Amino acid sequence: MTDDVEAPATDEPAPRYLAPGDVGLVAPHDFVHARPFTFKNGQTIPGFTLRYETYGTLNVSRDNAVLICHALSGDHHCAGWHAPTDRKPGWWNNLIGPGKAVDTRRFFVICPNVLGGCQGSTGPSSLDPATGRPYGLRFPFVTIRDMVHSQKLLLDHLGIVGLHAVIGGSMGGMTATLFAIEFPELVRRVLAMATTGRESTQAIAFNEVGRQAIMQDPAWNHGDYPTPGGPRMGLAIARMMAHITYLSDASLHRKFGRRVVQNKPGEGPGTFDVQFEVESYLRHQGQSFIDRFDANSYLYITRALDHFDLGTAYGSLEQAFAGVQAESLIVGFASDWLFPPGQNRDLALALLRAGKRATYAELATEAGHDSFLLESPELYALVRAFLEREETVVDFTI
Amino acid sequence: MTDDVEAPATDEPAPRYLAPGDVGLVAPHDFVHARPFTFKNGQTIPGFTLRYETYGTLNVSRDNAVLICHALSGDHHCAGWHAPTDRKPGWWNNLIGPGKAVDTRRFFVICPNVLGGCQGSTGPSSLDPATGRPYGLRFPFVTIRDMVHSQKLLLDHLGIVGLHAVIGGSMGGMTATLFAIEFPELVRRVLAMATTGRESTQAIAFNEVGRQAIMQDPAWNHGDYPTPGGPRMGLAIARMMAHITYLSDASLHRKFGRRVVQNKPGEGPGTFDVQFEVESYLRHQGQSFIDRFDANSYLYITRALDHFDLGTAYGSLEQAFAGVQAESLIVGFASDWLFPPGQNRDLALALLRAGKRATYAELATEAGHDSFLLESPELYALVRAFLEREETVVDFTI
Repeated sequence: MTDDVEAPATDEPAPRYLAPGDVGLVAPHDFVHARPFTFKNGQTIPGFTLRYETYGTLNVSRDNAVLICHALSGDHHCAGWHAPTDRKPGWWNNLIGPGKAVDTRRFFVICPNVLGGCQGSTGPSSLDPATGRPYGLRFPFVTIRDMVHSQKLLLDHLGIVGLHAVIGGSMGGMTATLFAIEFPELVRRVLAMATTGRESTQAIAFNEVGRQAIMQDPAWNHGDYPTPGGPRMGLAIARMMAHITYLSDASLHRKFGRRVVQNKPGEGPGTFDVQFEVESYLRHQGQSFIDRFDANSYLYITRALDHFDLGTAYGSLEQAFAGVQAESLIVGFASDWLFPPGQNRDLALALLRAGKRATYAELATEAGHDSFLLESPELYALVRAFLEREETVVDFTI
Repeated sequence: MTDDVEAPATDEPAPRYLAPGDVGLVAPHDFVHARPFTFKNGQTIPGFTLRYETYGTLNVSRDNAVLICHALSGDHHCAGWHAPTDRKPGWWNNLIGPGKAVDTRRFFVICPNVLGGCQGSTGPSSLDPATGRPYGLRFPFVTIRDMVHSQKLLLDHLGIVGLHAVIGGSMGGMTATLFAIEFPELVRRVLAMATTGRESTQAIAFNEVGRQAIMQDPAWNHGDYPTPGGPRMGLAIARMMAHITYLSDASLHRKFGRRVVQNKPGEGPGTFDVQFEVESYLRHQGQSFIDRFDANSYLYITRALDHFDLGTAYGSLEQAFAGVQAESLIVGFASDWLFPPGQNRDLALALLRAGKRATYAELATEAGHDSFLLESPELYALVRAFLEREETVVDFTI
């Protein structure tokens, strides 16, 4: 009677999480640093947790580790699947896996959620052991440097003594670059994409509008709100706006144009209901974000971005890069207007002026800032070649 | 005893409102159309008011009128001063006045606040005579076409039988262009700047985020709120965000860079207080806007912008322009990323393809979309020459 309920196994398509080239089912780990950690601004917390994932195997010489650094709204889950029922794999699944550009048959990939985040790592939504309540605004001001230093402690914990590469896009590119500055002896390659040496005025401006949307939401309550709950309306507004800056006019036009949503016969939308498809898309982006992201983390991480300014922090970009030992590949995307190509090129130029091995590549995608996350055989080829070629041996003696 | 209270008149600087080239003290007028007006969508209101200003004198042949069309957040007060104590003159005072590019010694300048607006013209904040309460969302959906047709009634009222020119930037450029399409026999010259033949997907997206910020503010209350009052927080957020789109990364960088605000000694700003000057500037923009603009008008007018699409409305841009009799000058600004140069150029190209007299000029300002409002001798020269030269006589017979 129930014979036809289950189709024979041979007729079923292979589950997506078993697709060739995917790392398959993965699970996060927690690194608990049970000693005090002092932030750049001098404040201390009694300890912290970093949630992270790893794929591949650390080799016996422990020199095949690749650190992946995520962007503002990213997390530690950058490849594979948490459960067979997941709708989507990790956020950089197209780049990372067996045989992919970041080849997990060869490299031991590590991806932590940043300090200040909200996906398992310690941040403003974590409980303050001193009070038993979430830190909220009592969490210290976080910088990209604090993210880097906390991740160094994770690497120590894992016994990593050298990184084959540090890779990241957007904020992840800042983190990767700063890693090579702060721990030069540890980093052999830096691959930074769609990033900048300092947040521009316009980028600060957009971040500030997002923060205001959150902080003006009465449910924000100066950062003290229950979980789940909080300034969902403000966070959705912030995300909708930010999402526009991640795309490009051309890609929005290609995806949605001026197409209007279809209504049931006789049911026209009200003047201020969703009328254009792009509105529906943006509202969805806002709504899905509030289910996975903490508003205070959004405040803290955007502030970390605003204050990122290598030139000012080290005197000049060249001075910032003076001690770097890594070889660098910086990739800009032509349609990225949040961290435009010029800001990426400037990083490579400063590395070269500082006497470092650096290359700049510009890709002509039209997808805007988010280009680094999307399917791009051109990008894959660049990444693969940069990671797999022998280290350049430069002999400066004549 | 009081002799020294008033300084001798000769030592006082001339009041700003008497500056040479300014139209001086001006006052608005109200045009009351006391008969029903039917909107494009079929809805009717029993009558409407347009508040407007005029400068200069209509000549006896009544052929020297110039209609000025304002942008989203503009109004009828485009030149001169309402009171000697005003901090600022009208919004296009640098362009309009005796001896200026739009020379009020020669032209009779008319500038109405748009239908749907909130500066004296009938809009959603006006009282609905049927209920005695503000229209709110019961106000009909307004289009740029409705703005044009209501302004035509104002021209009829003033006895204007031909316009020397219609001039506008941004939404004002849409209005000006549509005027020449809807009333071809009336318009001899169109000067449209920083505008577009249709709102782009990205522009709709930004408008939608602004509307969501307003409509998600509990004080919006589905459009029913007291005056003063309403969704001030949401409107400020919408304005802050929109303001970024009116400028450019380069102009923001030049104005503010990454400069931080100065605090009193020992008083550092909190992490999420104003830290960068650009944040202070944006918050000021938001706060000053809510004192002068109605949130429902913002919703209605942005919707009018979203739905502006000449090509779709008339079948194609060329068909839209088929009946135009005016000579057109379209001006794009290199740094404008809201209505980029290409969208302006496309208007001129379509006018030319339709066999019309049209010119496109692109100015290399760095001020972004708002360039059309700023000091620009290059723009003044273009405008003056376009307005003052003889009409081109084109003889299409061979």
